Amino acid sequence: MTLQGHSLIAGEAAPGTSGTAYGINPATNEQLEPAYTLISEQQLKIATDAAADAFDSFSTLEPERHARFLEAIAENIEDIGDELIERASTETGLGLARLQGERARTTGQLRLFADVVRQGDFRGVRIDPAIPDRAPLPRADIRQRQIPLGPVAVFGASNFPLAFSVAGGDTASAFAAGCPVIVKAHNAHPGTAELVGRAITKAVRDLGLHPGVFSLIYGSGASIGQALVADPAIKAVGFTGSRAGGTALMRTAAARPEPIPVYAEMSSINPVYIFPGALNGDVEALAQQYVTSVTGSSGQLCTSPGLVFVPAGDAGNRFAAGVTDAITQLSGQTMLSGGIASAWQHGHDALEAASDVEVLGRGTKGPDENSPAPAVFTANLDVFTTNPVLHEEIFGAASLVVRYKGVEDLVEATGKLEGQLTASLHVTEDDYSAVAPLIPALERKVGRIIINGWPTGVEVGHAMVHGGPFPATSDSKTTSVGTLAINRFLRPVAYQNFPEQLRPAPLQDANPWQVNRLVDGQPDHN
Amino acid sequence: MTLQGHSLIAGEAAPGTSGTAYGINPATNEQLEPAYTLISEQQLKIATDAAADAFDSFSTLEPERHARFLEAIAENIEDIGDELIERASTETGLGLARLQGERARTTGQLRLFADVVRQGDFRGVRIDPAIPDRAPLPRADIRQRQIPLGPVAVFGASNFPLAFSVAGGDTASAFAAGCPVIVKAHNAHPGTAELVGRAITKAVRDLGLHPGVFSLIYGSGASIGQALVADPAIKAVGFTGSRAGGTALMRTAAARPEPIPVYAEMSSINPVYIFPGALNGDVEALAQQYVTSVTGSSGQLCTSPGLVFVPAGDAGNRFAAGVTDAITQLSGQTMLSGGIASAWQHGHDALEAASDVEVLGRGTKGPDENSPAPAVFTANLDVFTTNPVLHEEIFGAASLVVRYKGVEDLVEATGKLEGQLTASLHVTEDDYSAVAPLIPALERKVGRIIINGWPTGVEVGHAMVHGGPFPATSDSKTTSVGTLAINRFLRPVAYQNFPEQLRPAPLQDANPWQVNRLVDGQPDHN
Repeated sequence: MTLQGHSLIAGEAAPGTSGTAYGINPATNEQLEPAYTLISEQQLKIATDAAADAFDSFSTLEPERHARFLEAIAENIEDIGDELIERASTETGLGLARLQGERARTTGQLRLFADVVRQGDFRGVRIDPAIPDRAPLPRADIRQRQIPLGPVAVFGASNFPLAFSVAGGDTASAFAAGCPVIVKAHNAHPGTAELVGRAITKAVRDLGLHPGVFSLIYGSGASIGQALVADPAIKAVGFTGSRAGGTALMRTAAARPEPIPVYAEMSSINPVYIFPGALNGDVEALAQQYVTSVTGSSGQLCTSPGLVFVPAGDAGNRFAAGVTDAITQLSGQTMLSGGIASAWQHGHDALEAASDVEVLGRGTKGPDENSPAPAVFTANLDVFTTNPVLHEEIFGAASLVVRYKGVEDLVEATGKLEGQLTASLHVTEDDYSAVAPLIPALERKVGRIIINGWPTGVEVGHAMVHGGPFPATSDSKTTSVGTLAINRFLRPVAYQNFPEQLRPAPLQDANPWQVNRLVDGQPDHN
Repeated sequence: MTLQGHSLIAGEAAPGTSGTAYGINPATNEQLEPAYTLISEQQLKIATDAAADAFDSFSTLEPERHARFLEAIAENIEDIGDELIERASTETGLGLARLQGERARTTGQLRLFADVVRQGDFRGVRIDPAIPDRAPLPRADIRQRQIPLGPVAVFGASNFPLAFSVAGGDTASAFAAGCPVIVKAHNAHPGTAELVGRAITKAVRDLGLHPGVFSLIYGSGASIGQALVADPAIKAVGFTGSRAGGTALMRTAAARPEPIPVYAEMSSINPVYIFPGALNGDVEALAQQYVTSVTGSSGQLCTSPGLVFVPAGDAGNRFAAGVTDAITQLSGQTMLSGGIASAWQHGHDALEAASDVEVLGRGTKGPDENSPAPAVFTANLDVFTTNPVLHEEIFGAASLVVRYKGVEDLVEATGKLEGQLTASLHVTEDDYSAVAPLIPALERKVGRIIINGWPTGVEVGHAMVHGGPFPATSDSKTTSVGTLAINRFLRPVAYQNFPEQLRPAPLQDANPWQVNRLVDGQPDHN
C-alpha cells in the first residue's frame, strides 16, 4: 500500500493545509517518507461535522451489522500483512515479534467487542412496567437503556502503535458503544496510523455506513488536539500518554460550555511488594523476572514496575545482588522516539542525583540511537517516603528497589503512594496474615492487584481492569482495557409511557434484538 | 425531640466554634429557634478523618447488616413522627401532605437500596478463570468487583428537605455502595436536618458501626462546603442545587491534587411539546394540567416545566386561553426561602422585560410572605431560539409558552436547547410520524422522555433516570434517583491470581454472599 501522507476525513484523503511532519526511525534518527500534511482548524471542522451527522444512523445500527463492522476492521488490519508490522517497527523501534503479538491483541479486542455488541448486555435495559391500579398514584411504564454519548476523540498511545492507537482499545470500545470516532494520529507513528486508518475507512465503506463514522487527522497535539477536544460535536475523549498531556486535555474539556468526560490513562509506577516468604525460594529467578519485567519493550509499558519493596537483611540482599547481576548483562533497546529517550534520561538523572539513592546495577547502552543503558536504583523506605522525586514515573527501563524493615511498614508506605494501575505481591502462604491488611490499602490506590505475577502483560477479557485512581487515570471508575471499557461511552435514558411504535428496538415488548433485560429489578434472560 | 443546634460529628453533638445561624420561617420571615452553631475547618477535619477511618469496616460489611442499617434509618425517621413533618413545613413553607409523601419516598428509597444491597448485583462480579494450557501464554485467573470510592460529601437540596437532603437519594445510594457520608446541612432547613441526622446517628450506633460512617455539619457553603470538597479524605460529591453552586464545587473538585467526581444536579427547564393531535381532545384539561405542573410545590421541583411548545393557530390559541384561565385563578404559595423568592423575582423580571415576550396570564400574590404571583409568559419560536434569556431556568412558578408554526421546526429548536432532565410530549397516534424524528434529538439533550404525561413526579425505581447532559447535571452518565444511582459511588478493581484465602467474599469460589456473577462474560446466576 502506498502511503499518501494525508488525513482521512470522513472517507476521503484530505491533504492538510497547515504544514507537514515526518515520522522518524528512532534507531537511526532518520526521517521517514512520506511527509505527513497537517490539517487546519477549518479542516478539523469538516471531520467533526461529519461525525455529528453520522451519529444518528451509527448509534442505531442493528447489532449484526454493527458487529460485522468491528470484525471487518480486524480483517482489514490482518489483510495489510507484513507491511504494517514493518512500518510500525521502523517508526517505533519495537521488535517484529512484539508487534505481531500486539496486532493479534488489536484484532482480538475488535472481535471481542463484536461479541459484546451481539450479546447486548451493554444496552443496560431495565423495564419497570406500569401499575395502573397502584394507590395513591398509578405507576407509569418506565424503560431505561444506555445510549452512546456521541462522537469521541481518541488520542493514540506512542507505546502501543496498534493496540492503543488508531484501531486500539479506545476506538474499539467507542465504536462498540455506537459512537463515531475521530483519531488524532500520534506523531511518532504516522505511517502505521495511516495504514490502520485506511483499514477502518474501508470497513466503513464496505458496510455502507455514514462516512463520518471515522476520521483520522494529523496535526499538533497543542493546537489541533486541543481544538478537537474543545469542539462542541465531541462528547468524550480517550487518551493514553503523559500526565502533562492528559491533564491539559482534562482542563480543556472541563472549561467547555458543556464539559465532557476525558478518559486519560497517564502515569503509574506499578509497585511490587516482595514479602519475606517469597525470598525463601529461588531468589535469583525472582530477581531475573523483575529485571525482565522492567526492561521488556524497553520499559515502555504502562504497567512496567518502577518500584519494588524488598525486605532489608540477607535474603533481600541476595535479591538485590541478583538484580545487579541480571541488569548488568543487558544492553539498551531503542526507545520509541528521541523525545521519549530524552525524557527517560531526565528522569534517570533526577533519580541518580537524589539524596541517599544509589545505583544497584546498570546495563550498557545499546548499539542503536536512543537506546540508553537500563538502570536499577536502590534506597531505604524512609528515603522513599519522604522524597516525592522517587515517586515519579520514569517512562522506560529504570526502576527503584526500596528496602523495608518490617512488613507492617508497607501499609503506611502504600498510603503515601499516588494512584496506580497495578500493584503486585510476591508471597507464600506464610505471608498471608501479613498480606491481608495490605489488600484494602492497595484497593484504595490501584485498579489491579496481582499475586505472584508481574504487572506487565494485560489480559483483554471481561474481568480486566486497566485503570486506577488519579494520576494513573483521570477516572478511577473506568477501565480502558477489557469489555467494561464500553461503559465509558454510554449514558442512560429513560422512556416513560412510550407506545410500542415509538420505543427504540431494545425496549420494545417484541424485543427484536433479544437483549437481556431487568424487569422490576429481576433478570429476565433471553 | 429537643433540637440541640449542633453538628453531629462521628456520633457526637459538636458545638461549632465559627458563629451561629438560624432557620427562618419563609411564610413569616421569622427566625426559628434554636441557633445553629457553625463548625470551623479544624472541626471539619475531625469529621473527614473519622470518615476515612470508618471506610475499611463499612465498605466490607456483610450484606445483611449493611441492609439492616439502611432499614434502621428508615424506621428511625418514621419514629420521629409528626415533629419532623411540622418542623420541615415551618422551615420550608411546603405543605404537610406534600411532606408526608416526601417522607414516604425517603424511607421507600432507603428500603429499596436495602434490597439492592441484599441482591448484590451492584458488586459487578466478573470472573475470567485461569487457562493454564493456553498458547502462546497461559491465562491467569482474573476476578473483578466494584468497590466503594471512599467517603462521600453530600449537599442537600432546598426543595426536598427529606428526599434529597440528609437521608435522601445521594446519602442512601452512597451508604448502599459502602461509602461513609458527610452531609453539609442545607441552611434553609437546619432543624429538619438535625432530626434526620440524629435518626442516622442512632442507626449507626444501634448497628454497632464505626461512628465515622456519618457526620452532619453546619457551616457556610462558600467556606465549609468548599473545604469539605477539597479535603483529601473525600472521594466523591453529591449535590442538588443551583448552577452557580454546582459549578463552583466542580471547579474545586477538579483543582484538587487528586480530582474527584462531582455529581451535581443543577438546572433544567424541562421542555414540553404539544403536538397538533393532542389539541383535538380536551384542550382546557390539558392547559389545566400544565398549570398544575408549573405551580405544584410553588414551581420548585427540578422537573417543573418551564417551557412548552404549542402550535400556532386556533387550537393553540385555545390552549393558551385555557392557561390564562387556569393561572388567573391561582394565588402564590410560600416559596422555600426569601433568597429563592428573590431569585425567582429576578428571573421573572428578566423574562418579562425580554423583547417580544408577553404575559399570558398571572395569578395573585399569596397571603403569606415570599409567595409571589405565579406567571406564564408567551413568545414565538424565533424569539425563543435567538434569545438566551428565554432558555434560563426560573426556579419557581413561572413558565413560557412558545408558539411554533410547523412540527418540523421542533427538531431544530431542540438542538438549540441546553441539556435537560426531562422532555415531555403530548401526542396522539396521528402525530407519531412527526414525533419519531424528534426522539433522537431529545435523547441527545435529556435524561428522561415522557409521552402524554408531565415531568413532575419522579418515580423511584430500577428504570428511572433523573439526570441528563450539562447543565442539567455535571455527569450525564449517571442518575441521582433510582437504583442505578449507586453506580456513582463505585469503581472496579481486578484481582489476578488470588488464592481463595485472600479473595474478598464476593469473589471467593464459595461465593458466601451468593451474588450473581459473570463468568467468561456469561451470566452464572445463583
